[in-house]
Amino acid sequence: INSKLPNLGTTIFTVIGQLAKEHNAINLSQGFPNFSPDFKLLQLVNKAHLDDFNQYAPMQGVLSLRETISEKTESLYGTFYHPESEVTITAGATEAIFTSIAAFIKPEDEVIVLRPAYDCYEPAIELFGGIVVPIPLIGSSFKVDWDALKKAISPKTRMMIINTPHNPTGTLWSESDMLQLQEVLKDTDIILLSDEVYEHITFDGEQHHSVSKFSDLASRSIICSSFGKTFHVTGWKIGYCVAPKALMQEFHKVHQYNVFSVNHALQIALNEYLQSPEHYLELGNFYQKKRDHFLNAIQGSRFEAVPSAGTYFQLLHYGKITDEKDTDFAERLIKEYQLASIPISVFCGSEYNEKFLRFCFGKTEDILDQAVEILHRI
Amino acid sequence: INSKLPNLGTTIFTVIGQLAKEHNAINLSQGFPNFSPDFKLLQLVNKAHLDDFNQYAPMQGVLSLRETISEKTESLYGTFYHPESEVTITAGATEAIFTSIAAFIKPEDEVIVLRPAYDCYEPAIELFGGIVVPIPLIGSSFKVDWDALKKAISPKTRMMIINTPHNPTGTLWSESDMLQLQEVLKDTDIILLSDEVYEHITFDGEQHHSVSKFSDLASRSIICSSFGKTFHVTGWKIGYCVAPKALMQEFHKVHQYNVFSVNHALQIALNEYLQSPEHYLELGNFYQKKRDHFLNAIQGSRFEAVPSAGTYFQLLHYGKITDEKDTDFAERLIKEYQLASIPISVFCGSEYNEKFLRFCFGKTEDILDQAVEILHRI
Ligand SMILES: CSCCC(=O)C(=O)O
Ligand SMILES: CSCCC(=O)C(=O)O
Repeated sequence: INSKLPNLGTTIFTVIGQLAKEHNAINLSQGFPNFSPDFKLLQLVNKAHLDDFNQYAPMQGVLSLRETISEKTESLYGTFYHPESEVTITAGATEAIFTSIAAFIKPEDEVIVLRPAYDCYEPAIELFGGIVVPIPLIGSSFKVDWDALKKAISPKTRMMIINTPHNPTGTLWSESDMLQLQEVLKDTDIILLSDEVYEHITFDGEQHHSVSKFSDLASRSIICSSFGKTFHVTGWKIGYCVAPKALMQEFHKVHQYNVFSVNHALQIALNEYLQSPEHYLELGNFYQKKRDHFLNAIQGSRFEAVPSAGTYFQLLHYGKITDEKDTDFAERLIKEYQLASIPISVFCGSEYNEKFLRFCFGKTEDILDQAVEILHRI
Repeated sequence: INSKLPNLGTTIFTVIGQLAKEHNAINLSQGFPNFSPDFKLLQLVNKAHLDDFNQYAPMQGVLSLRETISEKTESLYGTFYHPESEVTITAGATEAIFTSIAAFIKPEDEVIVLRPAYDCYEPAIELFGGIVVPIPLIGSSFKVDWDALKKAISPKTRMMIINTPHNPTGTLWSESDMLQLQEVLKDTDIILLSDEVYEHITFDGEQHHSVSKFSDLASRSIICSSFGKTFHVTGWKIGYCVAPKALMQEFHKVHQYNVFSVNHALQIALNEYLQSPEHYLELGNFYQKKRDHFLNAIQGSRFEAVPSAGTYFQLLHYGKITDEKDTDFAERLIKEYQLASIPISVFCGSEYNEKFLRFCFGKTEDILDQAVEILHRI
């Protein structure tokens, strides 16, 4: 076989997941809860199957669900997206991201990516012949390097991808970050792809600043979100995106031939479930308890942490323990200590050499305690 | 917006579906049943949700389901696909087709397509910069034009797409067609993408000849199938593909970043359900009754039919009625007669001018009877 993608390997989540399984490791690597979603939600989806929502949903998604998302977005972020033409249900946020890139990136188009960057962005850009223009986030604060960003913009820049709350670092974009970005992009026609799948998971009273709050950003943006992350159903593979009509029309051109449409019964159930906003508004508090539990418990170990401000990930710095590269150390933790995490250099390009591992604390306390017990031994 | 895909419109299924709805038409256009799937299957999926298969499935799919598909494929078609590396669960057959094209087609690669061709193939090829090399099926027999095919093959031919049972014509590839194709492709390294989503829907004792029966074809092929079509659950958006390991590795490179993985609970349920082969082996008889009912009932109308040999579609020839182009006639049938069908020129390129409409007979008899009553009035 003459490979089209000779340098592309297997996603880190599959690689580490398989290794964790082989070594029977406690798995804080891939981001998913080890507990059940709300029983009410399961009842709703089971009802939707029996009510016979088993044939094709509309290509854009079920209209009532799109209406609900439109209302939710307007009430949280103040911007109205028309349910008919500006909201689309996707096969998870991953499909939304891939399809967005597919719909806009042509060979030689440049796409600005802030690293560490979630692992699906760059391969998709390259698949469509685009050129990744990576900008490292600064040091261990992971702030945006605005000067580097300004310099990276060229007439060939077609898109920029941002992600807040940020996976893997757990940082948030502030309002002033957003205003600054708005200023930087002002005289360009760069499309912004905003990955906001952890929008409801922020801590310590901090708010999520959606791109949709900033009208000069919103008008150039596709914003992706995830029901899997919000309702503890990562296995359902259902998310959505919102965008102004002109962008969404282009999105649909690809979406319709990529997956055509998304599971019908799940859409019916999620629409019902979304009628109670407490189902997502309490999510930050829920995960903050887990973060705090995890951070308190690692006190006294040789791992160091700046508390995560959002997502269900916590970076731990292991510089006091070893000089090993993060990929080597992560592998050794699985093999010798039966504890799986994600080395963050996989999100950074191979030159990256900071000493961070990413742990998912979206787990029950017994699992977190078992993991922490191991961390204390290292 | 500077469109990447300025000439691409909305899929015919969405366009006709919306028009049908507006005009409250009997809808025999898009291919989906208007009846429920087996209650047992719904119970299985509901159980899988309560058994908490709600987090990510493996990227390739649930292993037990891949094993079951491997066994089914071997027992039906005699070829063994390794469940670990040669079977993948996809977000419907559409995602399997799109991802296959994405994984192999580079700018300037040629892809041979036999027209009429299902509407997702050509836009996907063009999205990746490939060149569609269309070969019309012959006349109203829709046989393959072998001479044209041989002439169309060039050093730039990277892929050929075939589809049997064939949508929209309802024709089947015979064993001798497959042997002929094997001969034609013998000295090439052309990848074959075989869309076999209607594999279990064949009539009058005719068998489906899967590409996987022919080892010199199978070794170069990705074969796509659909649980939606087989189990009356088109809205679930779950299918699969099989391919030799070397091809599947390339497929995974895209699949993992396109959708990552597919709904977990559905995979668990389908694996259970597939343990009883009668659930799919009886499908041809089931739909044959509907085809026969439909064909008998249109006797005496001015529409003419060659009986469909597979799929749940029947072409009707309307040359005795009008000279209108099929798109115009289809639109008029919706607006004046409240009956929706699919004009087949949309699968053929704009120059096509035969007088066929496609009707989906995968419906309950009351709906078929209402449609037929209208057909008699035209
Ligand atoms: C699509 S699998 C990865 C899940 C996730 O978002 C993460 O672990 O970062
Ligand atoms: C993906 S919607 C179209 C369903 C179908 O296969 C058809 O009607 O041909």
